[in-house]
Amino acid sequence: MKRYIKKNYPLHQIRRHLETGPIVLVSSAWKGETNIMTMGWHMMMEFTPALFGCIISNANHSFELIRKSRECVINIPTLELADTVAGIGNCTGGVIDKFEKFGLTPVKAENIRAPLIAECYASFECRLHDGSRIAKYNFFVWEVVKAHVAPSPKHPKTIHYRGNGEFMVAGGTISLRRKFRPEYL
Amino acid sequence: MKRYIKKNYPLHQIRRHLETGPIVLVSSAWKGETNIMTMGWHMMMEFTPALFGCIISNANHSFELIRKSRECVINIPTLELADTVAGIGNCTGGVIDKFEKFGLTPVKAENIRAPLIAECYASFECRLHDGSRIAKYNFFVWEVVKAHVAPSPKHPKTIHYRGNGEFMVAGGTISLRRKFRPEYL
Repeated sequence: MKRYIKKNYPLHQIRRHLETGPIVLVSSAWKGETNIMTMGWHMMMEFTPALFGCIISNANHSFELIRKSRECVINIPTLELADTVAGIGNCTGGVIDKFEKFGLTPVKAENIRAPLIAECYASFECRLHDGSRIAKYNFFVWEVVKAHVAPSPKHPKTIHYRGNGEFMVAGGTISLRRKFRPEYL
Repeated sequence: MKRYIKKNYPLHQIRRHLETGPIVLVSSAWKGETNIMTMGWHMMMEFTPALFGCIISNANHSFELIRKSRECVINIPTLELADTVAGIGNCTGGVIDKFEKFGLTPVKAENIRAPLIAECYASFECRLHDGSRIAKYNFFVWEVVKAHVAPSPKHPKTIHYRGNGEFMVAGGTISLRRKFRPEYL
């Protein structure tokens, strides 16, 4: 599988990769154990600091690793990884090492212990910003502290979960810049 | 512009239309005034009750209408409405009636005062479930109390904001059902 060479990316622009709503792979590490889970319930919350919110069900093996370490990496896969994404979402990390099982490559992050995934074109290092609604909603508010994005492809074929085992694949891009106020761009 | 005939839709399946991350139009009403805003920072939070979270900046004219009425409708537009979406996002409802200006048709909701938008293929009536993080993050947690979805198209060409005036258009759909555990479908 292709591994991406990613570069440092401006934090205030990460919405360009997250706001479209792709399914993501969340990697985590705690006391020598690493894991990966799929996740589709997430949203941007603020430009600066770069806040990102998501729901991580406590039924996931990753939940405790993430809650205890207060860290994770949000990685964005593309169409080539669709089978891998479905596979990861349908087995549990309690008994297996998902990096090994799925042939994914962990890459050391700069600021946290959770690893980036080399086969994803974008990876965002996250530190817990607000855990006050974890108990009530499994809701985590993250501050993205470092963003790594591959310079190409310019418009990655991300996949977006429709439920029922189906994914929408990112299609074309249209620009409506001429309709935007300059201050909204 | 095409108006959709929508039907009652099961609340526990609304993720099929929202989890892909489309840009949405939020309609609201308060003391005889209605408004529409565009919104892309949102996520599913729970199946039952059907909870949906979103960020509505207090810089929007709609913010006070929504906060005071504790209601809104989340409407999903498709590609035909792209120019309208950009137009709505780049003017303010403080001085104009956006239904009139953009030729959109308000339709009476069943449970709330905010109107559905006839030209959107899906509309979700929402009541405020938790407003405790509005002050801190402009974060609203909604309970969807009624869902209206047009039976066709099966895979609507939703548009997904990439920032910078660009939208990704929903492409094809792939099914990976064979890779899913039955209980995860």
